[in-house]
Amino acid sequence: MSDHVYKIVELTGSSSKSIEDAVENAIGKAAATIDNMRWFEIVNTRGHLDNGKIDHWQVTIKLGFTLHQ
Amino acid sequence: MSDHVYKIVELTGSSSKSIEDAVENAIGKAAATIDNMRWFEIVNTRGHLDNGKIDHWQVTIKLGFTLHQ
Amino acid sequence: MSDHVYKIVELTGSSSKSIEDAVENAIGKAAATIDNMRWFEIVNTRGHLDNGKIDHWQVTIKLGFTLHQ
Amino acid sequence: MSDHVYKIVELTGSSSKSIEDAVENAIGKAAATIDNMRWFEIVNTRGHLDNGKIDHWQVTIKLGFTLHQ
Amino acid sequence: MSDHVYKIVELTGSSSKSIEDAVENAIGKAAATIDNMRWFEIVNTRGHLDNGKIDHWQVTIKLGFTLHQ
Amino acid sequence: MSDHVYKIVELTGSSSKSIEDAVENAIGKAAATIDNMRWFEIVNTRGHLDNGKIDHWQVTIKLGFTLHQ
Amino acid sequence: MSDHVYKIVELTGSSSKSIEDAVENAIGKAAATIDNMRWFEIVNTRGHLDNGKIDHWQVTIKLGFTLHQ
Amino acid sequence: MSDHVYKIVELTGSSSKSIEDAVENAIGKAAATIDNMRWFEIVNTRGHLDNGKIDHWQVTIKLGFTLHQ
Amino acid sequence: MSDHVYKIVELTGSSSKSIEDAVENAIGKAAATIDNMRWFEIVNTRGHLDNGKIDHWQVTIKLGFTLHQ
Amino acid sequence: MSDHVYKIVELTGSSSKSIEDAVENAIGKAAATIDNMRWFEIVNTRGHLDNGKIDHWQVTIKLGFTLHQ
Amino acid sequence: MSDHVYKIVELTGSSSKSIEDAVENAIGKAAATIDNMRWFEIVNTRGHLDNGKIDHWQVTIKLGFTLHQ
Amino acid sequence: MSDHVYKIVELTGSSSKSIEDAVENAIGKAAATIDNMRWFEIVNTRGHLDNGKIDHWQVTIKLGFTLHQ
Repeated sequence: MSDHVYKIVELTGSSSKSIEDAVENAIGKAAATIDNMRWFEIVNTRGHLDNGKIDHWQVTIKLGFTLHQ
Repeated sequence: MSDHVYKIVELTGSSSKSIEDAVENAIGKAAATIDNMRWFEIVNTRGHLDNGKIDHWQVTIKLGFTLHQ
Repeated sequence: MSDHVYKIVELTGSSSKSIEDAVENAIGKAAATIDNMRWFEIVNTRGHLDNGKIDHWQVTIKLGFTLHQ
Repeated sequence: MSDHVYKIVELTGSSSKSIEDAVENAIGKAAATIDNMRWFEIVNTRGHLDNGKIDHWQVTIKLGFTLHQ
Repeated sequence: MSDHVYKIVELTGSSSKSIEDAVENAIGKAAATIDNMRWFEIVNTRGHLDNGKIDHWQVTIKLGFTLHQ
Repeated sequence: MSDHVYKIVELTGSSSKSIEDAVENAIGKAAATIDNMRWFEIVNTRGHLDNGKIDHWQVTIKLGFTLHQ
Repeated sequence: MSDHVYKIVELTGSSSKSIEDAVENAIGKAAATIDNMRWFEIVNTRGHLDNGKIDHWQVTIKLGFTLHQ
Repeated sequence: MSDHVYKIVELTGSSSKSIEDAVENAIGKAAATIDNMRWFEIVNTRGHLDNGKIDHWQVTIKLGFTLHQ
Repeated sequence: MSDHVYKIVELTGSSSKSIEDAVENAIGKAAATIDNMRWFEIVNTRGHLDNGKIDHWQVTIKLGFTLHQ
Repeated sequence: MSDHVYKIVELTGSSSKSIEDAVENAIGKAAATIDNMRWFEIVNTRGHLDNGKIDHWQVTIKLGFTLHQ
Repeated sequence: MSDHVYKIVELTGSSSKSIEDAVENAIGKAAATIDNMRWFEIVNTRGHLDNGKIDHWQVTIKLGFTLHQ
Repeated sequence: MSDHVYKIVELTGSSSKSIEDAVENAIGKAAATIDNMRWFEIVNTRGHLDNGKIDHWQVTIKLGFTLHQ
């Protein structure tokens, strides 16, 4: 454990439903190319408005994963 | 697009249900007097406690809209 | 309570006396046009110097008030 | 009201469901030993990932309560 | 001087040319409705990209002006 | 001196008079249960408004004290 | 639009001419390998001095682009 | 794991030797009264100077531990 | 006016009386060696505690002055 | 020099020994795939605790390197 | 290189033309009394408004230089 | 004690060995011209990389000292 090295990437996920769903969309997309994802942190929560309503949420996360040995 | 000017106002919405609902309440109220709302960003998420439980969420947003030509 | 929406504006008050007096001057001015003021938060405390002395304090606040139903 | 003193503690709540549920878990736990809880503020929203999915949300809050007279 | 009260508003100006031009566009627009503008501060400099090039700069400022006596 | 350990707690004091008085109220309350208080730092200055006037100041401090040997 | 995922990378561009030119150099370089670039934000503006003059500007940006479907 | 609640306290440790040693001193002291300590984060690194030299380092940490079930 | 250059120095003033008095003490000291002082900004407000009471306030300011032509 | 473009990545290194060693582990790992590394900056220093002691340090850095011509 | 010590001073330059020109004015002034200037970083970009237009830009920089051996 | 005024300067020290050594180098250099140094605070920890290794650490501190009576 004590000699692991992690890389952290920044992603923005979108969703018309909720903050949680926007994060899940970003992580689902990342899972296609990144193994060993370990944690995330929300750094920004925004949204796009259309016709006086929330069209979609845009949530930016930092995502940490273990670099392969 | 490239010559638009936007104004940004700060609002706090409340809800007993969720963070998303508090944001929607702030935007619904703003929609009564502001046209052309374009985006928002959450700047603070707080809540009021009563009898050891969350009574309501208070979410502060910055809200951007296009100034009329 | 749980369905209120608040607006937050930013003001700078001045005073040759004290930080508290500068805040009161900003709030006194705001009270002429804003009802239902609820809270403030100091975001910056500066001052103007003249002849090696403090000429006046300049205190910037965020001021929150209830939007009319 | 004007002579109250409040203490603020920092807690992290967890939930596999949502950000709101993680906050409620932290507050529910605190309610066992703290009376007169008044407000909270989210200071950090993270999550633990397992097998390419969100295993649980971890939300850190500041929690304010009135010190007994 | 020492009893003035200032209001601060937040604006985003756009320009395909430069950061300075985006600020000038925001101020030119504000000048149509605000007298006695005194200072501004840049709080954010962003840009929109199209076809691999900068389409326009988006500069957000805080703009301070004297409230009428 | 070089082997001391300090604990830091966060408190909000209130006062209808001044920022300094609000800090003193928080410290006076803390003195009832904490020995060896060493320093404080203001982290936030807010206030509650009532009828267009400042009803009371609310000042949040970090308060450091020596842990008993 | 509402189901897009964006990645954000951090780059520093240099230029002996201007802040804008340093940003354009970073984006021009990125365009060689990244499609669908959407926005940038300046996070830091520095410069290298030589012989008492500005030798070149160094501007760090966050650059957002759409992840391929 | 997903239903744990953690408390976070803030401590300052001192050492005439190193930053690491100051953190260890704070944690060693905390271990006397806190079980289940899980993580820490350095929030501030200062030092006291005497006779033109570093007399001791003062490192402030946030320390997280599991609240008993 | 538009070709002036200002230097900004950081000072901490002390006072057993008030925040304002601590700032004035710092500026009074600075006035002995600096001409053309123009403005200040409070960056930190701390205090030293002795016997459960505030012994003195320590206020750190940034102080701007015109560099001689 | 003045036309270089740099990329900045974020890494977390671990070590049971020291902060410096954790940074070196992150850089050693990065050196396997990145040429022309130029500078780093520590953005966060944390640690994992086990049995009341520091098990390993976790240091997050931003790492800058020259993009190939 | 590895045993150099640098001092960092804070300056505000002004210009009616541009941000870059305001930085150059500050550096040109500093060059009259400081040798071995190495780098700068912009910490604040403001401006003074007169008659609804930008009268001059005011850019604050941190300026680093090598202390003489 | 309560009427002292302190000045704070910003320095960057370098070392090929450790963070602590870089701070000591900055303080050793400052001791040649500054009496009555009282405290320091680390504001930034960077490093220069050469050939895939840390060539030297660069640590920026704020250094406080008593102004002569």
